[in-house]
Order: sequence, then structure tokens, then C-alpha cells
Amino acid sequence: MSDKGETRTVAETQHETAQLMMPQHANVLGHVFGGVMLSMMDTTAAVSAIRHARKACVTVSVDRVDFREPIHVGDLVIMKSSVNFVGKTSMEVGVRVESENLVTGVRRHTNSCYLTFVAIDRNGKPSPVPAVRPETADEIRRYDAAKERREVRLKERIAESRA
Amino acid sequence: MSDKGETRTVAETQHETAQLMMPQHANVLGHVFGGVMLSMMDTTAAVSAIRHARKACVTVSVDRVDFREPIHVGDLVIMKSSVNFVGKTSMEVGVRVESENLVTGVRRHTNSCYLTFVAIDRNGKPSPVPAVRPETADEIRRYDAAKERREVRLKERIAESRA
Amino acid sequence: MSDKGETRTVAETQHETAQLMMPQHANVLGHVFGGVMLSMMDTTAAVSAIRHARKACVTVSVDRVDFREPIHVGDLVIMKSSVNFVGKTSMEVGVRVESENLVTGVRRHTNSCYLTFVAIDRNGKPSPVPAVRPETADEIRRYDAAKERREVRLKERIAESRA
Amino acid sequence: MSDKGETRTVAETQHETAQLMMPQHANVLGHVFGGVMLSMMDTTAAVSAIRHARKACVTVSVDRVDFREPIHVGDLVIMKSSVNFVGKTSMEVGVRVESENLVTGVRRHTNSCYLTFVAIDRNGKPSPVPAVRPETADEIRRYDAAKERREVRLKERIAESRA
Amino acid sequence: MSDKGETRTVAETQHETAQLMMPQHANVLGHVFGGVMLSMMDTTAAVSAIRHARKACVTVSVDRVDFREPIHVGDLVIMKSSVNFVGKTSMEVGVRVESENLVTGVRRHTNSCYLTFVAIDRNGKPSPVPAVRPETADEIRRYDAAKERREVRLKERIAESRA
Amino acid sequence: MSDKGETRTVAETQHETAQLMMPQHANVLGHVFGGVMLSMMDTTAAVSAIRHARKACVTVSVDRVDFREPIHVGDLVIMKSSVNFVGKTSMEVGVRVESENLVTGVRRHTNSCYLTFVAIDRNGKPSPVPAVRPETADEIRRYDAAKERREVRLKERIAESRA
Repeated sequence: MSDKGETRTVAETQHETAQLMMPQHANVLGHVFGGVMLSMMDTTAAVSAIRHARKACVTVSVDRVDFREPIHVGDLVIMKSSVNFVGKTSMEVGVRVESENLVTGVRRHTNSCYLTFVAIDRNGKPSPVPAVRPETADEIRRYDAAKERREVRLKERIAESRA
Repeated sequence: MSDKGETRTVAETQHETAQLMMPQHANVLGHVFGGVMLSMMDTTAAVSAIRHARKACVTVSVDRVDFREPIHVGDLVIMKSSVNFVGKTSMEVGVRVESENLVTGVRRHTNSCYLTFVAIDRNGKPSPVPAVRPETADEIRRYDAAKERREVRLKERIAESRA
Repeated sequence: MSDKGETRTVAETQHETAQLMMPQHANVLGHVFGGVMLSMMDTTAAVSAIRHARKACVTVSVDRVDFREPIHVGDLVIMKSSVNFVGKTSMEVGVRVESENLVTGVRRHTNSCYLTFVAIDRNGKPSPVPAVRPETADEIRRYDAAKERREVRLKERIAESRA
Repeated sequence: MSDKGETRTVAETQHETAQLMMPQHANVLGHVFGGVMLSMMDTTAAVSAIRHARKACVTVSVDRVDFREPIHVGDLVIMKSSVNFVGKTSMEVGVRVESENLVTGVRRHTNSCYLTFVAIDRNGKPSPVPAVRPETADEIRRYDAAKERREVRLKERIAESRA
Repeated sequence: MSDKGETRTVAETQHETAQLMMPQHANVLGHVFGGVMLSMMDTTAAVSAIRHARKACVTVSVDRVDFREPIHVGDLVIMKSSVNFVGKTSMEVGVRVESENLVTGVRRHTNSCYLTFVAIDRNGKPSPVPAVRPETADEIRRYDAAKERREVRLKERIAESRA
Repeated sequence: MSDKGETRTVAETQHETAQLMMPQHANVLGHVFGGVMLSMMDTTAAVSAIRHARKACVTVSVDRVDFREPIHVGDLVIMKSSVNFVGKTSMEVGVRVESENLVTGVRRHTNSCYLTFVAIDRNGKPSPVPAVRPETADEIRRYDAAKERREVRLKERIAESRA
């Protein structure tokens, strides 16, 4: 599960970014497109994955994303990501999405999502990644939940391939 | 389930688009970012939803997306979408993604995904949409599968809110 | 006129794409810029040319384009292209442009245009392309019209170079 | 032919712009896409038209464009435009395109083209524009040539509508 | 110096963002353009200013920026901003720029810069902003330094207007 | 101070470009972002530097920029640049920024700024550039002023490194 016994803490993979939503990110009624959020989630999560693997990484899956609350033009979208769990060549990255209305100062948690990445070598082949060391209680809880999600994904994939 | 008894066939909601993958869509090894695919899926599906609802629509969820095969710079990505199922204000749209190597002429089915949209009125409130009429055997099969997926989503959402 | 006797049908070169017109594609009155349409025509036609040649292709000319009807923000622009005629290294591609108002469901044919591409090799030199086989009555009519347009272009070019 | 007898000189409509060609403007062999050039021609010509009309303007036609020489990544593309001729609501704008290799210092004239714009009012209806006063011998020659091109366009349009 | 006696701490204005540098941000040798950094600095600083003022803000000046170390494609650029000092309608925002090589894990401080913003009302007129309360020793040191820089700027502006 | 005794006149380095300001360049009140102006200044100045050096160039510093007047959506921003002064491997480029309201025809000088570039070789190392020959009285005045600014910058840098 490791690259020459090297390990990394979850803290080392933490990444934060933010982007101001502009008219070109939204429809004429001012609602930001889901695709803008999805693309920003992928880019954010990729930084945590690359920071962990110290290699190029490709997205292999994105778990279901629920957009529970609309994002509007003028909102600041903040995304925070870290590696939850690591397999031999794959990593689950969690992204927490917040939205801040800069005029009222109100910030709310809009949604969270989980993306899986695989590290690849120069020939595009999957490549081993270091193990991850969850340290805090939250990190350990997220590690265990990610491990479970991974088993569900594997089972569903087997079921789909038999269907 | 309808807007003044109006209904639409699945065929009326079918949409096709295609985009040539360029260096700015990819990492330095030439693998197209997952976010580029996710954003294009959302835009493609939105056209089917708007064509069905004839109103502005917002993405409310994207089911799990598995990127089973990498997409490369120079590939033509083709996306085909149609409305699978319709609730009172929501619509499930299916997107079939294909990738064509323009030099060899080989085209492969890379993945499929399901997005849910809600039609909204001028004030951003959910707004009723016409019923959908599946006509072919494939459309009826997809309608039934979409109905089942919807129930699973509702159950999972209830389970999450209780967690 | 062919690459090792290889030929391709017009149907094999057919390509369709569509794009939703957004505020950044238009002036403040909501009229889409001619340049957005011209750029999308070129990209669309290029896919048909590359699909025919299975090599990189460069645009060598664009026949006169008449924008008979304005396109507005919110319209879906649909472009359909195919190879009309093929010379030794050059191909004429026809593009049919349609515009759909997604709210009323009305779709209209806004214009058509003809672009000429040349296939190029790794050194940027013109490179032979397969012959094209028109099959339907429409394809044969377009083949003959394209052949005539090509002769007009050659004559005008000679006249210009003597002026 | 004028707006309250107001006239403008050709010199008042002259506009110059330049853009460095980047990897995202080109295919993998480094040839700039025709669509990038067409879009830049339209934007350049539009400035001359708006400067003449002092109103919003829309592109109504683009005469045939011949790309006689390839443009490469790293080239500086320079475009110079001015109003050649003016009708009641329409203006022909000429664009001269030059390409400079910044490393060798060699600049060449790659092509020229003619675009027709119509001035529009707040409701999108054609709106009268001032007359144009060619002053130099070159401006008068271009005025006369533009007038002839306009007659050819009108004849061809009548022929097409009867076909 | 305040808006109805309201004040804000420096901590409330702190903002962090990060962006992965891509080929379209750089020249062919892979050096990121200064303009990309300048534009990102302005956007970053603007968030701190708007968060402080809770109103639209415009950039009125950018102090000299020294790019002491080159930034390369593949680097993660991290920017951290906060309000240093506040006048009646203007705010000085400091931006600290760091660059991280995601493959080696090495992060370095590349430069810092100071931008001045003015809050504006709906008519584009300067509008009062709350006072800022520096709390830590660092914040107080930066407040004092910003106050001095402001006096230097005012003197230089008077000298320039007399020149 | 020269590359094999080669010299260039200031006139040879003169460059002009212009860009129409669009909604995506501005906040919701229609004020163009400072970052858009800064980025365009850098790109404009870079062309003068590359034209002088005939090599890749990187921005090493941007002197203080004062935005004395707001730029609005719909304005045409015109930038004119030329090399003011040349060291062994560095060049100071001056940029004059003008803004034209295309509807009223009024053009105003909004600001000027000075950027310093260094020419680099294939390995990213500073590389000698030709000397510059100011010819007109204005060019000589600007040459002398640039030389003075350079000494001020060097002194300030020494002072900072000691602080």
C-alpha cells in the first residue's frame, strides 16, 4: 500500500481554494451552472491527490453530488479538500464546498463530495502511492467511511458488469 | 405530473453535441481532466432538460460517474442526451459519452451518467414540467430504470439526513 | 485523387455539434457576434475534414457567409457538416447552421457555408486525401455544386493575382 | 445616406489591434485555427463599424477569406481596419491582416477581407449611419471597389433567392 | 473613518486561494506570464476588500511588484490576502504569493504586494467603509507600515501632478 | 550593453493593440477589473520587449500603477508600448493606456506604467539584449527618466534586502 514505505499525513494533503462567481458562470437568472461547480471540485480534489502522490493523477470516479442549495453570481465559492483514504494506486479525496455571500457575510455549507483518483506514471499506467496517516479523530472517521464507500463502489461495479 | 396536460416524447428531448479535446483541456501527459467531461455532461444534459421544460433549469444532482477509459487530447468527445423520466418539477436526463480517435476512426463508448434537473420560474422557485412519453422499448426500459434510481436517491437522502 | 485507392462515403464524414449561446458570446443588446459563429463553423467543418483525411487539416478558404437572421443569447446553435467534394489534397466541407429557441421550440435554418481545408503532413506540407463517394441524390447534387464552386474560386484567384 | 447630414472621414474609422498567437489558438502541429483568425477579423472590423456608426452594429456578411499563408504559434497577428463604403444602414469594413515573426522580425501581409455590418437601434432594427468621406487616393479607390463588391453581392443574393 | 461605527478585524478579511498553472498561462518555455500573476493578485485582493466593505470595490492602485523568482507550468500558486489599513473610502490589501512544486513538495515565498481599493455605491461614487481593527502584533506592524506607504503614495501623487 | 554590437531604434519596438471591454471583464456594476488592465499591460509590453530582444522575455517588475479613471464595459482600451531603456539583459517598457467611448467618440489618457523584462535563453537564464537608440527628443527624455527610475528601483531593492 506504500511507495518505498513513504507515508503522508492527511494534513499534508489539505488544500483550499476559492473563486468569485461571475456572469459567465451562470444562466440568465444568475444561477451558477452545475458544471462550473463539478469542474472546480475536480480541479480542487486533483491538487490534494497530486500533493499526496507527487505524480500526475487522473480522476476515475466522482460519487453522487447533490446540489442542495443554489449558488448565485457574486457568491464566493470556497472548496477545501484532503485525501481521505488510499489504496495501492488510488486515493479518495473529499471536497467540502462552502458558499459565502460577500455582501451579507453569511457563509453556508452547500455540499460535500468524494472523488477517486489514480496516480499514473509517464506511460499513463497506474502507479503506487504512499500510504496516508489519519491523525485526528475526524480524519480517522473519514478514513473508515471512505474505506466503506470504496467497498460499496467495488460491489456496485461488479453488479453492473454482470448486468 | 404535467403542465396543462402537455406531454413531450423522449425523441423531442434528444440532443447531441461534440467537442474536440485540446491541450488546455488536459494535463501535461495529455489526459483530459475529469472536470472538463463533467462540465460538458452538465451542459449537454441541461439542453435536454430545457428543451423538455421550455424554462430555465438547474442541476440538482449528478449520479456517480465512472471514468472507465482515459480521454486524450485530439479525441472527439460526443455526448448524446435525452430525458429519461419526469417528476412534478424534476427530470432525470441520461447522457451517453463516446470518444472518437479521428486519426484511426475508432469510436468507443466511454461512460454514461444520469443528472437530475429542476425547472425554475423567474423567482427561482421549482416549476411544473410536462409529462414525458417514452415510445420505443429502449425508452420504456430507461424510463423504468430512472424511476427506480429516483427511489434509491430519495431513500439515501432520507438516510443521510437522519445520520 | 486518392490515398492508396482508399475512399470514404460522405456519410462517414458527417458531424453534428451544438452550443448554447451565452452572454459572453454577444453584445450588450444580446446579439451573438459574427465571429463566434465563424469560429464555430471552422471548428465544426474541421472535424469533417480530419475525419475524412485522418490527418491534421488547415483551413485554406471560407466562402462568403451571409448572416440572414440574428442569433440571440439563449438560442441553441446547431451545426451539421460533411465533406462535399475532394481534390488531391483539398476538401470542400459544407456546414448547415440552425438556431433553436429552446423556450418556444422553434428551430430555423439560419445559413449555410462552404469551407476548404487541406490535409497536411508532419512537416506542414499538403498531403493526399482519400476520394469521397457521394451516395444519395442530395450528396451527388452537392458534389457537383462543390466542383463548380471550386472552378469559380480558381478563376477568381487567377484574376486577382493578375490584377 | 446620412444621419442628420453628419459625415465621417475614413481616417476617423481606422483601427489597429494585435494579438500574440498562443498554443490554445492552434492545433498540435502549431498551425493557428482559421476560426481564431475569423473571430479576430470580426471583432476588429466591428470596432471600425461602431466607431463610424456610434451605435451597436451586427455582422451581416463576410466575403470569401483566403488563408494564403499559415500562421504559427508565437507569431504576432496585426489587423488594421477601416470603413470602405457606407450605404443607408450598412457599412463595408476592410481588414488587412499581417503576421510578424517576433524572433526574425519578418512581417508579411497574409490576407485581406471585407465584412459588412448594419447599425441597429435599441430594438435591434437597422438604423441610419453617417456618410463616409474618403480623402486619399487609396481611400477613394477602396470606396469605388467596395461599391462594386456591394452590387455583386446584391446580384448574387437575388440569383440565390430565385434558385 | 467608519460606516455607522461598524468595525472589522483583520482576521475577518483574510482570504486564501490557489491555482494550478497550466500551459495556457505560460510562454513556450513554460514561464508563467506576469499578467496571469497580476490578474490573480487583483482578484484575490478584491475578495478581502469586498469582504471588508460589503460593497463593490474598484482597484485604484497597485504598488510596485517584483517577480523575484519565475513561476512554472505545473506549480501551484497560493495567494493569501487581508486588509492592512483603511481610510475613509479606501483600503490597502496585502497579498502574499507562494509557489509550490507539487512533485517535490517544495513551497517558496515568491513575492508580496500591496493594492489599494475604493468601495463604491450603486452610482459608482466612493462610499465609506468600516474601520479595521488589527489585533496581533503582525497585524499592527502591517497597519503601521501600510499607513506610511499611503503617505508616500499621496506625496508622490502630488509631486507628479506638479511635474 | 549589446548583443554583437547590434542596436535597435525605439521606433522598431513600438507596438499598439486595442481590446473592447466585455461583461466578462467587469463586475456587475460594469467597472472593468484592475486585473484585466494589468494583464493586458503585461502582454502589450511583452511584445515590445520580445521585438527588441528577439528572444523569449519574462516580466521582472511592474512599477506602481494608478488607475485614475474607471474603465467601463463597452469602452475600447488602447495600449501603446515601446522600449524606454535597456540594460545588459533587462529592458524597461513604457505602456500608455487610453480609453475610448465608441458611442461618444471621446478618448482619454487613463494612465501610463513601466514594466521591466529580462530576455532569457533556452535554459531560462538571463541573456544579453541589443542596445536601444532613442532618436526623437521624447525618446531621449523617456530614456533618461527610465535610467533614473532604474537607479531608484536598485536602491529600494538594496534597502528592502537589508530591512
